[in-house]
Amino acid sequence: MKIRLTEIAETIGGEIIGDAGREISGVAPFEHAGADHITLAGSPKFLKALESARAGAVIVPRNITAGAATVIAVDNPGVAFAKVVEMFHPKPAPEDRISPRAHMGEAVTCGQQVSVGHFVSVGDRVSLGNRVRIHPGVVIGADVTIGDDVEIYPNVTIRERCRIGSRVIIHAGTVIGSDGFGFAPDGAQYYKIPHTGIVQIDDDTEIGACNAIDRGTFGKTHIGRGVKTDNLVHIAHNVTVGENSVLVAQVGISGSTRIGKHAILAGQAGISGHLNLGDNVTVGPQAGIAKSVPDGEIVSGSPGISHRLWLRVQQLIPKLPEMRKRVAELEKRLEKLEEK
Amino acid sequence: MKIRLTEIAETIGGEIIGDAGREISGVAPFEHAGADHITLAGSPKFLKALESARAGAVIVPRNITAGAATVIAVDNPGVAFAKVVEMFHPKPAPEDRISPRAHMGEAVTCGQQVSVGHFVSVGDRVSLGNRVRIHPGVVIGADVTIGDDVEIYPNVTIRERCRIGSRVIIHAGTVIGSDGFGFAPDGAQYYKIPHTGIVQIDDDTEIGACNAIDRGTFGKTHIGRGVKTDNLVHIAHNVTVGENSVLVAQVGISGSTRIGKHAILAGQAGISGHLNLGDNVTVGPQAGIAKSVPDGEIVSGSPGISHRLWLRVQQLIPKLPEMRKRVAELEKRLEKLEEK
Amino acid sequence: MKIRLTEIAETIGGEIIGDAGREISGVAPFEHAGADHITLAGSPKFLKALESARAGAVIVPRNITAGAATVIAVDNPGVAFAKVVEMFHPKPAPEDRISPRAHMGEAVTCGQQVSVGHFVSVGDRVSLGNRVRIHPGVVIGADVTIGDDVEIYPNVTIRERCRIGSRVIIHAGTVIGSDGFGFAPDGAQYYKIPHTGIVQIDDDTEIGACNAIDRGTFGKTHIGRGVKTDNLVHIAHNVTVGENSVLVAQVGISGSTRIGKHAILAGQAGISGHLNLGDNVTVGPQAGIAKSVPDGEIVSGSPGISHRLWLRVQQLIPKLPEMRKRVAELEKRLEKLEEK
Repeated sequence: MKIRLTEIAETIGGEIIGDAGREISGVAPFEHAGADHITLAGSPKFLKALESARAGAVIVPRNITAGAATVIAVDNPGVAFAKVVEMFHPKPAPEDRISPRAHMGEAVTCGQQVSVGHFVSVGDRVSLGNRVRIHPGVVIGADVTIGDDVEIYPNVTIRERCRIGSRVIIHAGTVIGSDGFGFAPDGAQYYKIPHTGIVQIDDDTEIGACNAIDRGTFGKTHIGRGVKTDNLVHIAHNVTVGENSVLVAQVGISGSTRIGKHAILAGQAGISGHLNLGDNVTVGPQAGIAKSVPDGEIVSGSPGISHRLWLRVQQLIPKLPEMRKRVAELEKRLEKLEEK
Repeated sequence: MKIRLTEIAETIGGEIIGDAGREISGVAPFEHAGADHITLAGSPKFLKALESARAGAVIVPRNITAGAATVIAVDNPGVAFAKVVEMFHPKPAPEDRISPRAHMGEAVTCGQQVSVGHFVSVGDRVSLGNRVRIHPGVVIGADVTIGDDVEIYPNVTIRERCRIGSRVIIHAGTVIGSDGFGFAPDGAQYYKIPHTGIVQIDDDTEIGACNAIDRGTFGKTHIGRGVKTDNLVHIAHNVTVGENSVLVAQVGISGSTRIGKHAILAGQAGISGHLNLGDNVTVGPQAGIAKSVPDGEIVSGSPGISHRLWLRVQQLIPKLPEMRKRVAELEKRLEKLEEK
Repeated sequence: MKIRLTEIAETIGGEIIGDAGREISGVAPFEHAGADHITLAGSPKFLKALESARAGAVIVPRNITAGAATVIAVDNPGVAFAKVVEMFHPKPAPEDRISPRAHMGEAVTCGQQVSVGHFVSVGDRVSLGNRVRIHPGVVIGADVTIGDDVEIYPNVTIRERCRIGSRVIIHAGTVIGSDGFGFAPDGAQYYKIPHTGIVQIDDDTEIGACNAIDRGTFGKTHIGRGVKTDNLVHIAHNVTVGENSVLVAQVGISGSTRIGKHAILAGQAGISGHLNLGDNVTVGPQAGIAKSVPDGEIVSGSPGISHRLWLRVQQLIPKLPEMRKRVAELEKRLEKLEEK
C-alpha cells in the first residue's frame, strides 16, 4: 500500500515542510524507519536526532525547525501518528455474519453489520448495537446490553444484566460481572452475600486482557467513559472509576472505592476499600493506598505517602545501615564526653 | 414481588419490633432504602442513623432500642440480610438440560437436574453430582469428579482428575489443575518436572474469577472446606489452604506452603514456598511472607513482621528525612562540645 | 505398571548400587515412598536420611556412599528423576483427530498427528506443526504459526499473526497477542495507538496459566527459547525476555523492557518500562525495579537495591522505633552536657 504524503497531511491536519511529492509505504518506529516509511519524533530525544533520520517523513510538533528531513508539523504528534498507523493498517469492517456455530438466545436484538464468532454463547434478551464484533469463545449472559462499535475479544465472559457502552474494547480472557467478594461471618464459616447488582462500562473504554471486574452487591460497579485498563486488573464490587482514568497492569481496587476522573494508577498498585481518590490523582507503582487521596495529589509507597516525601524516603532507606552506624558512633563519643 | 414482613421474620428467625403488618417489595443498602424496602443496620454507623431510616424495615442485632423504625432483631444481622436478599432474588433451579451443543465424553455420570451449557466440553468418565450447573465455554478434563449443587461459571478450565466437592462455586475464567511450576536445572536450561498430582477442592468453597490453582507434583494441592478466594489469586503446586480461610484478590502462594484454618490473606500478599502459616493467621495487604507464622499472629509488611511493630515502623518510615537531620545536628553539636 | 530397576538405570544413564534385581511400580516423594517406589534424594536433607529411606530405590548424585539403601547414582538427580516420572506417567500420543466440533479456517495447514479439541476456533491460514495438541475452547487467530510438539491447554487465546515455536506448552486461560497498553494523550482523553506487531514465542518455552502477553506496537514482543513463566504473569508490548529466563507468578514487565538470558524474576516483582536487565540477573520477590540492572546482579526491594544491601536494610527497618528512641536519648543527654 502506498499513500501520498499530501493525503496523509490532509488526514491528520498537518503541514508538510520539505518534499511534499513523496509516497509512503508504511509506518515504523524512529530507529527502524527507512526512506519509504513515515515515523514519529514526538519526544526531545528523537527531535534532536531529526537531522539523521532516514525516514521518508517525520511527524513533528509545530514550530520545529526541520533541517534536511521532510516533516509533517501537527498540533498533537502522538495522536497524528496513531491516525497514520490506522491509515496503513485499516481495520476490516465487521463481517456482518453470525456464525452458525454460535448460540443466539431468545429475543436477542442485533444492530447492523454485527459479527458473532464461532462458539459464542449469547444469552436471552441480549441487545447488540451496530457493528458489534464478538470474537470466538465469548460468553454473554442474559439481558446484557452492548452499544455500537464494540469489539469483544476471544474467551471473554460478560455476565447477566451488565451494560456495555459504545466504542468499547474488551480484551481476551476478561471477566465482567463476576460476584463480588462479600460474605457474612457465621461462626467459623462465611455465608455468601448474593450480588444482585451489575457492572456498567461506559463509552470509549478499553479493558485489558484477563481483567476481573465484579458486579455490585446492589447497584453497580461503574467504569466511566474513556477509562483504560491494562492486563490482569482487579476491580471489586461497587467500585467507581471516573472518566478517562488509567489503570496500569495488575492494579487491584477493593470494594466500594471511588476513583476520580483522569487518575493514573501505576502497575501493581493496590487500593483499599471504601476510599475516595480524587480527580487527577496519581498513584505510584506497587503503592499501597489505605487512605483517601485529595484531587491532584501524587502518592507513592506502601503505605502510600506524598510522592515528594517518598522520593526522599526511598533514598534514605538504603542508607539505614550508615545511619545506624552514625548513631552508634554518636553514643560512643557522647559516653566518652560524659565520662569526662 | 411482595413478601410479608412476618414471613421474612420467620425465615430469618427474627423478632419484629414495630409494624408487623408491612409488606416489603425489595432489598436495598441503608442509604437508598425506601418505604417498601428492607435493609440492614449491622454496624454502629447505621445503627446510630436508625431513627432517620426511611426503610420499611431494618434488620438489626438483638437488644437494640429501635425507636420509630420497624426492625427485625436477629442474632446475626449479616447472615439474616443475605438470606433476605436470597428471598427477593431466588436462584432459578438448574435447567435440567444438557445443551446439544455441549460435548459429553464417554462414561460421564450425571446426577439429577444437571445443567450443561453450550460449548462445554466434559471429558471421559467425569462424574457430575445433582443440580450441578455448568455455564457455557467450560472445559472439564477426563476423570474429574464434581459433587452436588456446584456452579461453574463460563470459560473455567478444570483439568484431568481434579476433585471438586459439593456446594462449590467457581467463577469465570479460572483454571484449576494447571501444571505446577517445577523444573530441574539442566545446565543453562530447565527440564520439566511432570506434575502427576491433582487439585482437590472441598465442600462449600468459592473460587473467584481468573484464579490459577496448580495441581500437585505428586499428591494434591488442597483447598479446604469453606475457603473463599477473590479474583486473580495464584495457588502453586502442593499448597494446602485450611478450612474457612480467606484469600483476597491477587494473593499469591508459592509451592508446598500450608495455610491453616480461618486465616485471612489480604490483597496482593505474597507467601513464599514451603512455609507453615498457622490457624487464624492474618496477613496484611501487599505483605511479603518469607517465614512461617504461628497460630493467631498478625503479620504485615514486606518482609513481613508483627503487625503491631509494623504499625509503628510504617509511621517512622516517612520520618526518615527528619531523623537523618536530627542525627546530622547531633553530630555537629557533639563536635562543638568535643572541641571545647 | 512395573519397570525393572535396570531399565530405569539405563534410561537415565545411572549406576545401580545395591539390589539391581528389583522391580519398581511407581514414583513418590521421599517421605511417602514405599518398598516398590523409586524416589529422589537430591538435597542434603534427604541424603542425610538415606539410611532410613523405605523406598525401593533412591536416585542420588554420584559419589554418594549409599549404605543399606539401593540407589541409582546419576550426574543430575533432578533431571533423572523427572525422566523416571515420565516413564511411569507416559504422555499419550496426540489423538490425530480434529474434532468435528472444532472450526478450522480456510487454508489451514496441519502437520501429522495433530489433535484439535472441541469448540476450538482456528483462523484462516494458520499453520500447525506435527503432533500439535490443542485442547478444547482454544481460539487461534488468522495467520498464526505453531511449530511441532506444541501443547495448548483449554481456553487459551492466541491472536492473529503470532508465532509459536516448537515444544512450547501454553497453560489454560492464557492470552497471547492482546493489544499493548499504548495511548496518545488527546486533551483529557486518550487516543488508542494501533498495535500492529506480534508476539513471538521461541522453542521450548512454557507459559503458565492466565498469563497476558501483549503484541508489539510495531515489531514484536519476544519470549526467548526455553523461557518459563508461572501463572498470572503480565508481559507488555515490545518486551524481550532472553533465553532460559524464569518469570515467577504474578510478575509484571512494562513496555519495551529487555530481560537478559537466564534471569530469574521472583514472584510479584514489577519491572518498569524501557529498562535493560542483563543476563543472569536475579530480581527478588515483590521487588520494584525502576532502573536497569547489569549482568549477574541480584536486586531486591521496592525500589530495588543490591540484594546484599537490602538484606541489611530489611533487618534495620523493624528496628526503626529503637533507633528513633536512641536518637531522642542522645538529644537529651547532649542537651544536659551542653547545659553544663
